[in-house]
Amino acid sequence: MNKPLSINTPRLHQHIQALAQIGKLGETGVCRLALSKEDREGVDLVRSWMEEAGMTTRIDAFANLIGVWKGRNPELPVLMLGSHVDSQPYGGRFDGAIGVLGAIEAVQTMAEQGIVPERDVEVVAFCDEEGCRFNKGLFGVRGMTGKLEPDELERTDKNGVTRRQALLEFGVDPAEQAGYAFQAGRVGTFLELHIEQGPVLEAMDLPIGIVSGISGPLWLTVEMTGFAGHAGSVPMGMRRDALVGAAKIIVALNELASREPGAPTVGTVGSLQVFPDSRNIIPEKVAFTVDLRDIDLSRRQVLEQELFAALERVADEHGLAYTVREDTNSEPRYCADWIKRTMREEAEGMGIAPPPELMSGPFHDSLAMSYVCDYGMIFVRCLAGISHNPKEFSSPEDIALGTELLYRTARRIALQE
Amino acid sequence: MNKPLSINTPRLHQHIQALAQIGKLGETGVCRLALSKEDREGVDLVRSWMEEAGMTTRIDAFANLIGVWKGRNPELPVLMLGSHVDSQPYGGRFDGAIGVLGAIEAVQTMAEQGIVPERDVEVVAFCDEEGCRFNKGLFGVRGMTGKLEPDELERTDKNGVTRRQALLEFGVDPAEQAGYAFQAGRVGTFLELHIEQGPVLEAMDLPIGIVSGISGPLWLTVEMTGFAGHAGSVPMGMRRDALVGAAKIIVALNELASREPGAPTVGTVGSLQVFPDSRNIIPEKVAFTVDLRDIDLSRRQVLEQELFAALERVADEHGLAYTVREDTNSEPRYCADWIKRTMREEAEGMGIAPPPELMSGPFHDSLAMSYVCDYGMIFVRCLAGISHNPKEFSSPEDIALGTELLYRTARRIALQE
Repeated sequence: MNKPLSINTPRLHQHIQALAQIGKLGETGVCRLALSKEDREGVDLVRSWMEEAGMTTRIDAFANLIGVWKGRNPELPVLMLGSHVDSQPYGGRFDGAIGVLGAIEAVQTMAEQGIVPERDVEVVAFCDEEGCRFNKGLFGVRGMTGKLEPDELERTDKNGVTRRQALLEFGVDPAEQAGYAFQAGRVGTFLELHIEQGPVLEAMDLPIGIVSGISGPLWLTVEMTGFAGHAGSVPMGMRRDALVGAAKIIVALNELASREPGAPTVGTVGSLQVFPDSRNIIPEKVAFTVDLRDIDLSRRQVLEQELFAALERVADEHGLAYTVREDTNSEPRYCADWIKRTMREEAEGMGIAPPPELMSGPFHDSLAMSYVCDYGMIFVRCLAGISHNPKEFSSPEDIALGTELLYRTARRIALQE
Repeated sequence: MNKPLSINTPRLHQHIQALAQIGKLGETGVCRLALSKEDREGVDLVRSWMEEAGMTTRIDAFANLIGVWKGRNPELPVLMLGSHVDSQPYGGRFDGAIGVLGAIEAVQTMAEQGIVPERDVEVVAFCDEEGCRFNKGLFGVRGMTGKLEPDELERTDKNGVTRRQALLEFGVDPAEQAGYAFQAGRVGTFLELHIEQGPVLEAMDLPIGIVSGISGPLWLTVEMTGFAGHAGSVPMGMRRDALVGAAKIIVALNELASREPGAPTVGTVGSLQVFPDSRNIIPEKVAFTVDLRDIDLSRRQVLEQELFAALERVADEHGLAYTVREDTNSEPRYCADWIKRTMREEAEGMGIAPPPELMSGPFHDSLAMSYVCDYGMIFVRCLAGISHNPKEFSSPEDIALGTELLYRTARRIALQE
């Protein structure tokens, strides 16, 4: 049986509901685009809660909101907690938000218990995780960790507003980014609470999970080329139908990714275009995307080789030419074993069923943090895996359990000497 | 060995080349859109050749150009020969044109031989076979045979010009269509010479073929619906991926249509759209077309049932819903046995290899004529099956052989009492 929670559950939910009013869409949706007026309003509200929790706050030159709860020993590597409060244009109330508000609740609970942390604890609401406004995400966390690419400030939104202008309107001077360098080793640990954005916990009937890592996707664009012809006059045996070839690859990818029962491998063709796309013309050219993910990189690479073999075989069978462009080839980024172990132990202390380990397919601010420190993530069950949609939903009870585990894990780490 | 031809081959090719100058596109292409200035110019030139051949000419209220070569007995059903001279916007020199110019050559050859036909012989250049300007083809032949639908004159081209206006600009008064009725039995036989628009004769290394019939297509639009989700977070076993389902149907249709070796069955998915068509979202909805043709209607219907069974099975396996809309369900229209037999006998008389029988996948003016009289078609080999494209090509020798067979067949029929 679950033990009583230490966190202040009503306060947590009041915060979640109050933040959801800013940029509210319909009854349950949110539109809080990065660096918009709504984003600024949200950041200001969250900042007031950080200060109520006893943190000193600042907004850095990348528009990250940072709350600092001072520890005894400023020399120890920082424990950082956080996520983001920007949203998709047609987004939900929980993606990102619970990671920031849960982190504030964790710190506030500790502070109210009279705990004094050994190390500084920082809560961050990173700027523009979603990336939908300037078509490139994880802006704030990459800025803070020194990983921005040249000209990122010149990227424009659909109205032609540059990120530089948007930062100025938000109230941040991007000129202050000049000369900034991330101090290696300053942050020791990063913890992020997030909704699952997938259906696994719901299917297992479990409220929370411990993330094993963020699987890097392999993204390919495949183009298969045959020969057009009249659908009524080219006999089947003489055809070079690019769509039949593409269809066989789609089926093959689905079988490859499904081959090992229980493995977290996923393979998807999400986008496909046919040329000339006319009902009575045999398709001459088909372009489609491949998204292949696995937390086990070597297994993913075996499947990739088999996919290439299938392409060769199908192209040969149907007289097709093909090209493959690699758009992204990210490595999986594993959560630290000691953090996962700490989380399992703390969950046991909560008296709940052992949280399962889950791979994260989507990326998060944690992905960028994984390059500068150890990290751990807690997933909260969400309805039908729906996210990036006003229908996104996680129950108050599940969010409270996730936040309690975040609080307990953070307390353990905060108190380590 | 081939015997010498009766037709005037240089004259035939001079006509084909001269007509190809009107609306010329690049070196080998033609753009002679129905009822355009170029179409009118082409019709006037063809009319002059009809008159040189001894025909009296008129343009009817549907903008069909008709040349009449009077026979001894005006009571006998007419022998009609023809095709069209309008073209696709990015079309070739031979589609339609050789059917009209070959018919004129056949009549002129007979006339020069001093033949007097028993029955009237009419050569027709039908208006707007292609249908690309007003998005509905076979206009002239359907007009002549009394098969126009209400409001066809109100259809507009992409510049907002109605067919009524276009007819007026062409020099025809569409008001004269009122009260027109096709006189059943007036036409006894229709013959059409046409390029194959497919690769079968080329593959058989034979110059001409005798058409068995025009296979009516079954046109379906299938929509399969699953459930969207993040490509990185929904395990394979929990997916309802509409594109995987559609891919299996595409493969199944290809296998069904290929099952009987040598059968003229063809099955094609030419157009497909994915929603939301994003590389990291599992496809929620896929709509695609099905084009299934066979000269044997009962065989086509068996395949259709098996396709529906495959849809049911795949939808069940992948948790998909689906709908099927029937857009067109045409019956095959067979060429008359006695005409095919006459053509075979006449080909034997030419000393050429027996022309094979071919199904026509594409429709032609003959399709509409098939509802009012017996019909026969001769196909001429074309390069790589290419048509509706400036690269469309049939050799002068092959066109001459096809025209000779048209002439010989027409002569037999013209002289029947």
